[in-house]
Amino acid sequence: MYSYESLKEFTEKIFVKMGCSAAEAKSGAEVLLSADLRGVDSHGVARLSGYVRLWESKRINATPNVHIVHQTPSTAVVDGDAGLGLVVAPQAMKIAIEKAKNVGTGWVSVKNSNHYGIAGYHAMMALEHDMIGISMTNASPLVAPTFSLDRMLGTNPIAVAIPAHKEPPFVADFATTTAANGKLEILQRKGTEAPMGWIQDKNGAQTPNPHELKEGGALLPLGGDRDHGSHKGYCLGAIVDIFSAVLSGANYGPWVPPFVSFLPVSDNPVGQGIGHFFGAMRIDAFRPANEFKHHIDNWISTFRNAKAIDGHHVQIPGDYERIESINRLKNGIYLLPPVEKDLIELGQKFDVKLN
Amino acid sequence: MYSYESLKEFTEKIFVKMGCSAAEAKSGAEVLLSADLRGVDSHGVARLSGYVRLWESKRINATPNVHIVHQTPSTAVVDGDAGLGLVVAPQAMKIAIEKAKNVGTGWVSVKNSNHYGIAGYHAMMALEHDMIGISMTNASPLVAPTFSLDRMLGTNPIAVAIPAHKEPPFVADFATTTAANGKLEILQRKGTEAPMGWIQDKNGAQTPNPHELKEGGALLPLGGDRDHGSHKGYCLGAIVDIFSAVLSGANYGPWVPPFVSFLPVSDNPVGQGIGHFFGAMRIDAFRPANEFKHHIDNWISTFRNAKAIDGHHVQIPGDYERIESINRLKNGIYLLPPVEKDLIELGQKFDVKLN
Repeated sequence: MYSYESLKEFTEKIFVKMGCSAAEAKSGAEVLLSADLRGVDSHGVARLSGYVRLWESKRINATPNVHIVHQTPSTAVVDGDAGLGLVVAPQAMKIAIEKAKNVGTGWVSVKNSNHYGIAGYHAMMALEHDMIGISMTNASPLVAPTFSLDRMLGTNPIAVAIPAHKEPPFVADFATTTAANGKLEILQRKGTEAPMGWIQDKNGAQTPNPHELKEGGALLPLGGDRDHGSHKGYCLGAIVDIFSAVLSGANYGPWVPPFVSFLPVSDNPVGQGIGHFFGAMRIDAFRPANEFKHHIDNWISTFRNAKAIDGHHVQIPGDYERIESINRLKNGIYLLPPVEKDLIELGQKFDVKLN
Repeated sequence: MYSYESLKEFTEKIFVKMGCSAAEAKSGAEVLLSADLRGVDSHGVARLSGYVRLWESKRINATPNVHIVHQTPSTAVVDGDAGLGLVVAPQAMKIAIEKAKNVGTGWVSVKNSNHYGIAGYHAMMALEHDMIGISMTNASPLVAPTFSLDRMLGTNPIAVAIPAHKEPPFVADFATTTAANGKLEILQRKGTEAPMGWIQDKNGAQTPNPHELKEGGALLPLGGDRDHGSHKGYCLGAIVDIFSAVLSGANYGPWVPPFVSFLPVSDNPVGQGIGHFFGAMRIDAFRPANEFKHHIDNWISTFRNAKAIDGHHVQIPGDYERIESINRLKNGIYLLPPVEKDLIELGQKFDVKLN
């Protein structure tokens, strides 16, 4: 078990060794570690050496000049200058929040970025300002639209954070596929089968074998198949792709560059890097914030107290991650042996100790 | 078979008989008929007598004073004054479009409204302005969140319309449930079974029997069950509910009033009427509209030409509805015998002939 603080410090030091400024290394480390804290193990320190390899292959710029290329009072397009998405995204979200302060809402589409960690972190930045936060990103193509054999979309997550008064905030953060890729990776490691509806094989037939993904198969959009609404999951993934990348000028659909450095990027890109989309809506641009937050408390307690199936209860989006955060802050973060080994080796290479 | 024009004229005349102004009757009829045209039979003239009964029971105000109660440069809350949602919604969407002209985007949350027809119509209003249109609404509770026995949410649809250059626009319009209620009604009439994952019975077990919905069962969120991501469908339905109703001051969750006049409204409402949420984003608030639309053309043709499963092809959101519109404009609109009978009786009551 490692403490949150020690893993964050380790990550920050690695980013400094890459050449990041002190402030950006700190901010990027906080974003990355928010995944380990909230129980999204696939998006935290397990990916740190992947970011480093992208930097080594010159696909990530450690000293980006993140800047606005076009704007109106409520919108902006931000060029991430090939920076770490972990660093670019909070800067873009801050621009959305500033715009919301001025004109009620702010909407920022980002190009020329990289993987930005968990979507929820950025959406949650709005909460302390009594704003609703929205965050989405496209990602490298792993998902087959309904009836497609080709992988055309990423797992393209959507996060929405909504402030409450006495209740904890409502924080939805989900991939627009039946199951996120991180869940597949867990099954692949364990050697267990996936439920039908998560994956198709290279011929487009549903399969429980998580390894089919490496054999020409694909993840399936939320819904799984046409009868169960996969065309809706496909719509959601497509909307995320277009808001994040076609509005900004990033790569979209099958052109989105891979996260792993050993796969080549497209030699005829349709844009720059990957894309994100952020929104901030000031609550009092609609109604008094206190009034709204009291109603959200009522919404949350009403849903939480709904009559439930025996042995279960109705959860509020964000419950699991919040409880996990409390546990992990207190008891530490468990790293799988291969992840631990990977981090130790990374530390040796950069002369940073993992405590 | 009836022509689009004759059904629209019939609807318009009924609305005039209810006391609607000539302009609002015309606009409301166009919205209602867009459903029949686009193949969404459950949301068109089949519902006309339902709207009339709501007016007869004084739940719909035929001469509403639709007005802004609060606003900022990019936002507004609109009070629909208990008007027909078919009439309130286009007025609210126009406000969103005007705000987008001024500051890049416009976002309008609506309270004190009623059923607004198909979500897609309102989103599509943005297209001719080179804007992305967004439309969502809450609806009477039929849906059980993951693990809930109680019905807490409506089918809460989301529509997003995105302009293209040579290609037809991208128009997503979908309920956030596995299957929309209209599809259940079709199965109920035909007496056929539903796929598992659409409905649960009163004990929370999945059932293929569409009649269980009347026996204490519920529709299921997109995903169907926890293993297949129903918590994501629940998140989507919840976001629609909160944006539409908690931001505006409408009823939310289990308090949303029923569409059918024979069911009572809550005697301790948490807001007024039902709620909608609209957004308009000017494309050139992000990048030049022509540049964007050329890339959308490329997006659409790339997805349409993806390698497909034998006997299928990859559709673009809105394809089905657009092709259906062309067919129905040319060949007429077929009404099921009970719908036809209902309209003829309605016409007799109001002295309006159905041609």
